[in-house]
Amino acid sequence: MRPKLGIVAGGGELPGLVAAACRAEGRSYHFLALSGHADPAVIGDAPADWIRLGEAGTGFEKLRQAGIVEVMMIGPVRRPSLSELAPDFRTARFFAKVGLKALGDDGLLRAVVAELEHEGFRVVGVDEVLLDCLAVAGNYGAVAPDSQAEADIDRGVAVAQGLGALDIGQAVVVQQGIVLGVEAIEGTDQLLHRCGTLARDGLGGVLVKIRKPGQDRRIDLPTIGTATVRHAAAAGLRGIAVEAGGTLVLGREAVAAEADRLGVFVHGIELAP
Amino acid sequence: MRPKLGIVAGGGELPGLVAAACRAEGRSYHFLALSGHADPAVIGDAPADWIRLGEAGTGFEKLRQAGIVEVMMIGPVRRPSLSELAPDFRTARFFAKVGLKALGDDGLLRAVVAELEHEGFRVVGVDEVLLDCLAVAGNYGAVAPDSQAEADIDRGVAVAQGLGALDIGQAVVVQQGIVLGVEAIEGTDQLLHRCGTLARDGLGGVLVKIRKPGQDRRIDLPTIGTATVRHAAAAGLRGIAVEAGGTLVLGREAVAAEADRLGVFVHGIELAP
Repeated sequence: MRPKLGIVAGGGELPGLVAAACRAEGRSYHFLALSGHADPAVIGDAPADWIRLGEAGTGFEKLRQAGIVEVMMIGPVRRPSLSELAPDFRTARFFAKVGLKALGDDGLLRAVVAELEHEGFRVVGVDEVLLDCLAVAGNYGAVAPDSQAEADIDRGVAVAQGLGALDIGQAVVVQQGIVLGVEAIEGTDQLLHRCGTLARDGLGGVLVKIRKPGQDRRIDLPTIGTATVRHAAAAGLRGIAVEAGGTLVLGREAVAAEADRLGVFVHGIELAP
Repeated sequence: MRPKLGIVAGGGELPGLVAAACRAEGRSYHFLALSGHADPAVIGDAPADWIRLGEAGTGFEKLRQAGIVEVMMIGPVRRPSLSELAPDFRTARFFAKVGLKALGDDGLLRAVVAELEHEGFRVVGVDEVLLDCLAVAGNYGAVAPDSQAEADIDRGVAVAQGLGALDIGQAVVVQQGIVLGVEAIEGTDQLLHRCGTLARDGLGGVLVKIRKPGQDRRIDLPTIGTATVRHAAAAGLRGIAVEAGGTLVLGREAVAAEADRLGVFVHGIELAP
């Protein structure tokens, strides 16, 4: 039996999927839910403590009280400003160490991982629990990218890797070689909505959503689900490219079915590590 | 007397400013206005031929008929898809040479410059005519960036240069180290509007608008005007950073007055070439 899992929960449905995976294998777990980020409906009545993002001291203590040594951070966390954060003493000491400017960075997440490990926790990646959700290579449904879509995917990968190296976003929309939009913190849904209004005539574009170069698998993996497929189709795109082994695809069968229903592709590409 | 100027006119007010500058120095000029991009109100009843973007052959001929040897390309052109372009024979031959994928790129503009020069025209930059509009170093109005704003400007410059190296956008919004948004083809006004809804509590962010690294001054210089100042203030930003010698600031006094009225800064920064 694997040890009890501490789930530091941000937004969306992923924390709930991790909990379901734990239940399925009879593993116990405990949520450390981040107020204003985690969805109470997802946390439900599972064992949980709620803390603010700025309460690192309380968080470490709650995890220890729950008997946790293995921790996973999962679900998007809207990046706060310092005044929203209102850090406790422990959090302030952390920022004194990593520098306040880390607030704006995914460098923050890497620093949080290091701090958790410094406190004696072992930080594990979502791929250790949700192995089924890691994207596979090839087409999820019946539709495959054609040569124009493949060219757009190539351009999108180059742009996404460039953006990722700047530690900005993980998603890009390309149509006929034109970069319609790049994601910063607005999220993929807003990006897709905007690109729908910017699309050109002719063959529709593609969404590319991949990891940042060198991104730690334990933090903030790019994620798509059936809603992403619907929003992409609504924006006039012809498909989505994800990174095999690097992007989370929530619900393999459901995503494939939705893609087929809407006539778009979901295609896993293999990138050099 | 300088030779008659051929003004290949895209959108916005810049083509009209160039024409006004020509009139002020008694220089004759002729518009080659791009249908669907140039604003008829800006072109007015000045000497002009209208062509579609795909009619390069006609365009070269019209310029020669008007006795033009010196040409300026000015004003934004919404990037078309190939099916919108409907290229004539001369345009198709051009794309056969530079490759269709150039359509999505500012590489396209560089190729157009090279093609105009190959046809015997001399291509000049807007800075040769609108010298007053090139951004200067320092503060335009009474407000100066503080240390947080300077840190945000530094981060914005790094991100904008990274984006520019990928040949994407020229504008970035940063607040307290967080990249709120990056521009692709949606334009700065849409970027600012979106970032207004994404802003965090506390000190407001900055807009950074600079040239792409190595960008030819003859094409598509980043531009701000009084409307940009108003949109930035409406989005909760504390100011705008432009590149001294690299960004166009339309109406120095008007921009300074608008910045002062709204309590924001417009600050010219000097970047290493």
